[in-house]
Amino acid sequence: MSRKRKERIVIVGGGFGGLYTAQAMRDAPVAVTLIDRRNFHLFQPLLYQVATGSLSPEDIASPLRGILKRVKNATVLTGEVIDLDPERRVVILEDGDEVAYDELIIATGASHHYFGRDAEWEEVAPGLKTIEDAVKIRRRVLLAFEAAERESNPERRRALLTFVIVGGGPTGVELAGALAELARHTLRGEFRNFDPTEASITLVEGLDRVLAAYPEALSAAAAAALQAKGVTVRTKTTVTEIAAEHVIVRDTDTGEQSLLPTHTVLWGAGVKASPLSEALARRVGAKQDRSGRVKVLPDLTLPGYPDIFVIGDLAHYEQDGAPLPGVAQVAMQQGEYVADVLRRRRFDKAIRPFRYKDKGMLAVIGRNEAVADIGNLHFHGFLAWLIWVFVHINFLIEFDNKFRVMTQWGWNYVTRKRGARLITGEAEPVWLQLPLAPGRGVAVPEDVEELIEAG
Amino acid sequence: MSRKRKERIVIVGGGFGGLYTAQAMRDAPVAVTLIDRRNFHLFQPLLYQVATGSLSPEDIASPLRGILKRVKNATVLTGEVIDLDPERRVVILEDGDEVAYDELIIATGASHHYFGRDAEWEEVAPGLKTIEDAVKIRRRVLLAFEAAERESNPERRRALLTFVIVGGGPTGVELAGALAELARHTLRGEFRNFDPTEASITLVEGLDRVLAAYPEALSAAAAAALQAKGVTVRTKTTVTEIAAEHVIVRDTDTGEQSLLPTHTVLWGAGVKASPLSEALARRVGAKQDRSGRVKVLPDLTLPGYPDIFVIGDLAHYEQDGAPLPGVAQVAMQQGEYVADVLRRRRFDKAIRPFRYKDKGMLAVIGRNEAVADIGNLHFHGFLAWLIWVFVHINFLIEFDNKFRVMTQWGWNYVTRKRGARLITGEAEPVWLQLPLAPGRGVAVPEDVEELIEAG
Repeated sequence: MSRKRKERIVIVGGGFGGLYTAQAMRDAPVAVTLIDRRNFHLFQPLLYQVATGSLSPEDIASPLRGILKRVKNATVLTGEVIDLDPERRVVILEDGDEVAYDELIIATGASHHYFGRDAEWEEVAPGLKTIEDAVKIRRRVLLAFEAAERESNPERRRALLTFVIVGGGPTGVELAGALAELARHTLRGEFRNFDPTEASITLVEGLDRVLAAYPEALSAAAAAALQAKGVTVRTKTTVTEIAAEHVIVRDTDTGEQSLLPTHTVLWGAGVKASPLSEALARRVGAKQDRSGRVKVLPDLTLPGYPDIFVIGDLAHYEQDGAPLPGVAQVAMQQGEYVADVLRRRRFDKAIRPFRYKDKGMLAVIGRNEAVADIGNLHFHGFLAWLIWVFVHINFLIEFDNKFRVMTQWGWNYVTRKRGARLITGEAEPVWLQLPLAPGRGVAVPEDVEELIEAG
Repeated sequence: MSRKRKERIVIVGGGFGGLYTAQAMRDAPVAVTLIDRRNFHLFQPLLYQVATGSLSPEDIASPLRGILKRVKNATVLTGEVIDLDPERRVVILEDGDEVAYDELIIATGASHHYFGRDAEWEEVAPGLKTIEDAVKIRRRVLLAFEAAERESNPERRRALLTFVIVGGGPTGVELAGALAELARHTLRGEFRNFDPTEASITLVEGLDRVLAAYPEALSAAAAAALQAKGVTVRTKTTVTEIAAEHVIVRDTDTGEQSLLPTHTVLWGAGVKASPLSEALARRVGAKQDRSGRVKVLPDLTLPGYPDIFVIGDLAHYEQDGAPLPGVAQVAMQQGEYVADVLRRRRFDKAIRPFRYKDKGMLAVIGRNEAVADIGNLHFHGFLAWLIWVFVHINFLIEFDNKFRVMTQWGWNYVTRKRGARLITGEAEPVWLQLPLAPGRGVAVPEDVEELIEAG
């Protein structure tokens, strides 16, 4: 009997979905290839702590090769999959290279989008999905404080110390809370020409409450906790304009617009599926939802293509009449489910539809303050925060990250210091550079000046 | 009696020299302004550990505001001093802003240079002076291994796994040793298509030995230790050409040239004074040495300008017939000396010339291996390495860095892991991007092909 070629499993994406799939197949008689653009797994839930100077990028990222070193049937390739050919069963990389599969798992996640204003707003209002995003936000925020130290005009200084965060979901709430702590505690006493606690932080949300995925009582608790930290929470408010020196917001009830002079707008709103979604629509006729997420069958495959799975933030999976949220837990469970489906297929066993077991949701507002929605328990405050801390340390995939983050958090907690607040990375385009002296910067157009008068 | 205006001390540069000056004046009745382009102090001696994935940038940098928070008479400004007007006693910032001084201390250090080939070589052979340099080197080195995993042609793979380091001073030696350990230990078992221990690391030095500032026996010991780690040490060898896919080196004895196919060349050679040196030459007629360092008087001021001090790597100070080396110790002692001179001037006390007390030199080759030149003691091996570790942890200015680096080093030492090996940052210019698949990449010019045949 001739030796049978091993089944080739190709996983695209080294996030929670891809990694959990690969790890769940560690003992299977298959050859796994995991392809990612980056050489590391990023623990996205803690990205906001890099953006606000508490952790360093290296604390929340682990090299994929290190994680899969002992998963001997797995090969890691660094490259960007831009297309696939479902007939020839290959994925196609950015340089034309092809990788053949017997089964394909696509787990490339999502990025942010700007409700059709991407071209204008992306540069001025960075989102928070990658390490580079986080370093950029950190740079913008810290540079604004630096510029304020050199600014003598009080009005301009006020604009430099005004931070607007768009989107009241977990990312926006976490950013707002962390920024408030940065200004009120970490930076206190570090400037000589102004008091950093004067900084104004505004969280803007289009719906009638923050954390809309949570029970109403927890949304109210989160808003109250933010307000206690000095954050202005503006619900039922949308952004109609973002520029280098101001934003314009609109009250959805009254339609009234107002202008906030600010140099720093952070984006925590819209989510958009990764570009591979387009390739799937084109190549296998995959159906997309409004965010571009791919609609999958109960076994997470695509109609007509039992060899192609889509999981994680890229997948649109309905359960009990609603699509599952784009959170790490869903991706992990889907990854393990796919490994199980492939095992069951090898043994001709019955396959049950995927079912997400919600272990609860946690969102952190800051030191000692989080909200928890776990089964029938809804609570907030110190206990929720403690659970958040332990859950997050526990999920950091490699032990050395756990250890590092634990010691770093311990240190930060006791001292309220944030040692990672470095202004690093490439310089911004000139038109976005902060005015480090009076009189420079982008001129305010005429109609906007009118708004200042009016608003 | 009217209140006297406080003496205004302006320090340009937040390296060891500038910081030690500011800290030494913490109780003086003066108003200190420290100006730096960056918002952090960088512990340059450990930069090579960031470049090779052992530490994260945040581990070896501390925000200047944090360090000087409790130095109440010091103000930190983020900005780049590009000129000065010694008559009006102001320094001029990049945006035209001026800061007035009564006494000025310039401590802006040095950067690397390429012996007149800056324009051609800077892009291909990054040096190691800034955080961004270190992240770039880390990216280049790790991308070469990633490209090798996708390369099927053995010759091209060999070129991808060849690393050439130019310059056998401390930086070159430390980089070479750390790269060898990365390939031989950290990455072992992480690739499926080649063995990372096959990587070839060559250290090129124009003189007849590495670490030429050390006693000959220690140079020999360092070379032997590098060779034991698998590094090829080529002394009496200069670089005549650096390109995206090769370097050409020349034997200084025979004049023979040879070509090494490589994608990764790192620069640890020439040192050049910071651009403020030019401004000093132009504005106050300061004399420069060959590297552009400014020649200073015995009290570290400039001839005719007792109110302008130059210290650290930017200063050329002769002691016992030779200029002092550009090391942290010199900058620190000069910073403290300047603070003392200013104090003595206030009390009309006698001022003695600056005198550097050499506490010894240490250079590290890798795990358990360093060379030490301390007074009459010259030794190498484990003890020298242990001293190196403690000296460096001790110098990390803020305690939380000490703590972080200590725990991180402990972890790295036990596991041989390097958790910080992330490929991050902006993408390289297209012509420098590594070929991630066969057949791509920069074409080899004809004359170079001949050299391959010949050499």
